[in-house]
Amino acid sequence: MVNEQVGYFEANYVNFLSELLDFLRIQSVSTDPERKQDVRQAADFLANKLVSIGIEHVEIFPTKRHPIVYGDYLHAGLAQPTILVYGHYDVQPEDPINLWNTKPFEPEIIGDNLYARGASDMKGQVYACLAAIQSFLKVSDLPINVKFIFEGEEEIGSPNLVDFLIAHTGLLKSDCALNPDAGMTGKDKPTITYGLRGLSYFELRIFGPDRDLHSGSYGGIVHNPAQVLAELISKMHDSEGRVTLPGFYDLVLPLTAQERDSIGRYSISDYDYCKSIGVPSLWGEKSFTATERIGARPTLEINGILSGFVGQGSKTIIPSKAMAKISTRLVPDQKPELVYGQLLEFIRSNIPSTVRFELEQLSTGSPSISDITIPETKAMAEALKFVWGVEPIYKREGGSVPVVADMQEILGIDSVLTGFGLPDDRVHSPNEKLDLPTWRRGTIALIHFIENLKRS
Amino acid sequence: MVNEQVGYFEANYVNFLSELLDFLRIQSVSTDPERKQDVRQAADFLANKLVSIGIEHVEIFPTKRHPIVYGDYLHAGLAQPTILVYGHYDVQPEDPINLWNTKPFEPEIIGDNLYARGASDMKGQVYACLAAIQSFLKVSDLPINVKFIFEGEEEIGSPNLVDFLIAHTGLLKSDCALNPDAGMTGKDKPTITYGLRGLSYFELRIFGPDRDLHSGSYGGIVHNPAQVLAELISKMHDSEGRVTLPGFYDLVLPLTAQERDSIGRYSISDYDYCKSIGVPSLWGEKSFTATERIGARPTLEINGILSGFVGQGSKTIIPSKAMAKISTRLVPDQKPELVYGQLLEFIRSNIPSTVRFELEQLSTGSPSISDITIPETKAMAEALKFVWGVEPIYKREGGSVPVVADMQEILGIDSVLTGFGLPDDRVHSPNEKLDLPTWRRGTIALIHFIENLKRS
Repeated sequence: MVNEQVGYFEANYVNFLSELLDFLRIQSVSTDPERKQDVRQAADFLANKLVSIGIEHVEIFPTKRHPIVYGDYLHAGLAQPTILVYGHYDVQPEDPINLWNTKPFEPEIIGDNLYARGASDMKGQVYACLAAIQSFLKVSDLPINVKFIFEGEEEIGSPNLVDFLIAHTGLLKSDCALNPDAGMTGKDKPTITYGLRGLSYFELRIFGPDRDLHSGSYGGIVHNPAQVLAELISKMHDSEGRVTLPGFYDLVLPLTAQERDSIGRYSISDYDYCKSIGVPSLWGEKSFTATERIGARPTLEINGILSGFVGQGSKTIIPSKAMAKISTRLVPDQKPELVYGQLLEFIRSNIPSTVRFELEQLSTGSPSISDITIPETKAMAEALKFVWGVEPIYKREGGSVPVVADMQEILGIDSVLTGFGLPDDRVHSPNEKLDLPTWRRGTIALIHFIENLKRS
Repeated sequence: MVNEQVGYFEANYVNFLSELLDFLRIQSVSTDPERKQDVRQAADFLANKLVSIGIEHVEIFPTKRHPIVYGDYLHAGLAQPTILVYGHYDVQPEDPINLWNTKPFEPEIIGDNLYARGASDMKGQVYACLAAIQSFLKVSDLPINVKFIFEGEEEIGSPNLVDFLIAHTGLLKSDCALNPDAGMTGKDKPTITYGLRGLSYFELRIFGPDRDLHSGSYGGIVHNPAQVLAELISKMHDSEGRVTLPGFYDLVLPLTAQERDSIGRYSISDYDYCKSIGVPSLWGEKSFTATERIGARPTLEINGILSGFVGQGSKTIIPSKAMAKISTRLVPDQKPELVYGQLLEFIRSNIPSTVRFELEQLSTGSPSISDITIPETKAMAEALKFVWGVEPIYKREGGSVPVVADMQEILGIDSVLTGFGLPDDRVHSPNEKLDLPTWRRGTIALIHFIENLKRS
């Protein structure tokens, strides 16, 4: 049993928490070129932490943009499994900053909640893993072998991770990955995520006149780029809420009756969804439930639009250009790299001859389904059940964790995908928070997970 | 004859120009609350200039926002006409600032062109009037009576001008207005504008979820506000390029055969329009020529759109809201105040129940047609012909100068609407400029205009 390790964690809970706060103060926003140094600082912070808890082999690998932190501790011998702990230390941008009630990079604990950008996604999750492993190393020793890979580019689509995996298959050789970047379906619902959506992210630019024009002097003869963009976007879904890109659904795996049952176990009612996000009514593909649409169906989203004058008051212009950020969420067996061609074909067959356009692919990530019968998943299921007293939920998640599919393809290993964030953590939104009691339980579950992995 | 006055202007040309540069250095951007003091400074500049050239009665009338500068000089006696000189001293915002080749508020003369925000629209035009009148006052005396009204809110829709006109009908009593806020159709084509489009300007806001959402966790169940906005905008025109707001065309006066002929005199070919604004092809109502569509047909324009994440890189969110700036250009006898109701009805009958919306009217202005048989218009026509050696063009202009209609209704006077800006002056755009040789000719034409008004 692991009473000593859990005891160590409990006794040092406040220290772990204050270290996490230091981690959260680092503004590691990977999209922002001006904060490259902050991202680097977060990598150094992690590397130093690994060294301080006794991980002898720690390296920081530079990439074209943000570095990858590697570490390993291999003293349990060949008879014991090797687990590759994955995490990312970068965070989403904090904007819109004015909607935060606290400062995004000045963590505040209010009641059970820790408020900060990255608290839930995913610095808090990374820290739970480090706390669990430290609790073994300080009390006795680790019963298994561990390797660490922490990247700083997850929020920008991990542009350099695949190359790194390919270049270091030997170094990264493991039996399974532990990835705590997925959340729980509820406070009392420990969850193992076995299905993930992929992603293809684009920027579409429409070019009209060579300058902003006076809408009085030219209104009536120019096809307004903002209008053209709107006309294109309005055609990207049909009246049934289906995406209209040619071939978009060709590779989508149909939902089995058994899967629809298991999704039903953690389904949320339309009423509860409406309440939790504050909309009058939901929207989407008619023939699927909301939870099915999120977890097991592909979507196309407009992430942002900008054109012309958007300041205070009125400016009577015809904009010279318009831009939209467009992303698609993909499910097995869709191929992210095919969506660019589908969107391009859609635009070519729908765009008028009155404008020019550019389509840029900003990032891609593969969808995945993991084998839930492997011993590592069983070890996690037992640990979660021990701590929460209930069977974990097996979930298909709407979010994208492309590294899971990449590790399957390149390293040949499955991932145990879990995590201790909650649905109302507001990840990617203002006022992101982490539920501390859940985080504490999660860390204890990770201690049990490691123990459960030990082969007798 | 006016040889002496013209001689005085020519002799002092450089001084007039350097005063105009000082005027252009004032950042009188009326939309920007942070530059309220700059706008005030431009009003003071004009008032001081009026005093310095000998206008005894000069007053600055405060309004709810930016002041109105009034002045009069009434020494020609009752037998002579009284002309009300109208102008505005505010300018359009300079953004997008990065597209300027010079600094918008640091005027530069390059060859024949004076580059600065407001050089053509319309500080340069205001200064031409002042230079012409000064040339009379310094040489001998004015043969007519003049009054001045200069406002600082034209670029934000003159929200306080109508109230001022109503409150000061006695003070402003005149025979006719001189309004140099309309341009020429070409360098060798002096122009009198007799028809103007009106304006109704709106901001439409669409509200979806109560916060930006993670597009993975929620993609597939939320009607994206950016998508809803796009769907609405895409329905605001039909396949013929007609505006679909209910009742929008009900009050539009049909174009007479005679008008189509006179518009034909200054029509620009589609090819030349495409070249001058850099678009592959034009767009608009099928059954009218480009010049007819601009001058004599109403339009609806998207002036700007903003929603979600528009920074560098990718952020995977569903935006909580979307905003569009939408303006309509109106022709006689459309009523600007009716368009709000038409747009509201359009939105109500087209918006889905998945979102909420707000529609705000930011400004309105009436369209107008002026009587071109009045003596003041004849006096201007003769002056323009004398200086350029050709008959002026009588034009219906696409832009909006609502004050013309307001003065018709409230003061009962027509306006002689002309000006010395050129089609390629890039008003409301980066790199706005003024053609100095044309400005010089225009000022001389104004001297002749004043002389021609004298009743023998």
